[in-house]
Amino acid sequence: MTATTERLEQQLAFLTEADKLKSILRATSLCDGSRRENSGEHSWHIALYAMTLAEHSNRPINILRVIKMLLIHDLVEIDAGDVPVHAAYDVAAHEAKEQAAADRLFGLLPDDQRDEFREIWDEFEAAESDDAIFAKSIDRVQPVISNLETNGGTWPEFNVTAEQLESRVGVKVSRGAPAVWDILQTRIRAWFKA
Amino acid sequence: MTATTERLEQQLAFLTEADKLKSILRATSLCDGSRRENSGEHSWHIALYAMTLAEHSNRPINILRVIKMLLIHDLVEIDAGDVPVHAAYDVAAHEAKEQAAADRLFGLLPDDQRDEFREIWDEFEAAESDDAIFAKSIDRVQPVISNLETNGGTWPEFNVTAEQLESRVGVKVSRGAPAVWDILQTRIRAWFKA
Ligand SMILES: [Ca+2]
Repeated sequence: MTATTERLEQQLAFLTEADKLKSILRATSLCDGSRRENSGEHSWHIALYAMTLAEHSNRPINILRVIKMLLIHDLVEIDAGDVPVHAAYDVAAHEAKEQAAADRLFGLLPDDQRDEFREIWDEFEAAESDDAIFAKSIDRVQPVISNLETNGGTWPEFNVTAEQLESRVGVKVSRGAPAVWDILQTRIRAWFKA
Repeated sequence: MTATTERLEQQLAFLTEADKLKSILRATSLCDGSRRENSGEHSWHIALYAMTLAEHSNRPINILRVIKMLLIHDLVEIDAGDVPVHAAYDVAAHEAKEQAAADRLFGLLPDDQRDEFREIWDEFEAAESDDAIFAKSIDRVQPVISNLETNGGTWPEFNVTAEQLESRVGVKVSRGAPAVWDILQTRIRAWFKA
């Protein structure tokens, strides 16, 4: 087997395994309420959000790196599952599961690429770099829109208040994209008043 | 309304409309055969393919532009629907529908961004630039993998032969990523022999 063929075999194994993200269901629904969203289509949508809303970042960003982060950020859910923002869960146990998932999934790639993807994912998780802060803020925007479009979506189920949204979601969105939170906040307040 | 708020209202309207791509079903199935794939999750997957397989491009590419192309390339299906590679259809009528869809969907964005996204989409459709040739080749890879993973997938249904795959898919994949076609060709031949 040539070196190129070997790399390709590993890369295609990774990409085929990634297909499973399309079967991981999230708490939120599609905007028409027809069914729950999966993490594959969610990852596409937020990459499109990042591409469209990049100008609203309050810090300098490398949009290619941000998009790469968003394309791979949820892959660990293939092994570790999705945890809804408003659900209670064991943080340490879930983090350990995600680390093991990252080892296994990125480990399917050729070593150099495994390290590159893992570094991007670690950076996203750490939420400290400018790119990660913007990526994290964008990741929180789309579920709010989806909930607003579907009569509050999961908010009633989880007894979520406007104040909780402010502290759990608003703080994170504002950190990277304050103008986006301004407009969402207006919509959220109107929804809770209605 | 401030200029920023007005831009954001337009951008969020575009992003909310884009949600509908998750309800456009393609001919191909998920790799586990559990259900048909939708164009939203497909767009995520091929952006991940491009990010992972960029090194196999046979021409210089701007990977950010390639990924942007792949993230928006199927949006027109929201109005025009998906046409399977192996199906017969009226090319001119379908193209007119797609042009109208591009007008409407990208028209939701602020004017400067409408023009930017439309230019990227037009470039993809023209399939002439290095970035578009690579993006088009990647777009053809994932369905082959999915069909191979699901017992030939849609091939038996459309009576597809190895020769047809060579001329309809192989030529396009080889144009931008010949090493990727080499490995797929080997797998395809083995599948048709078995
Ligand atoms: Ca997420």
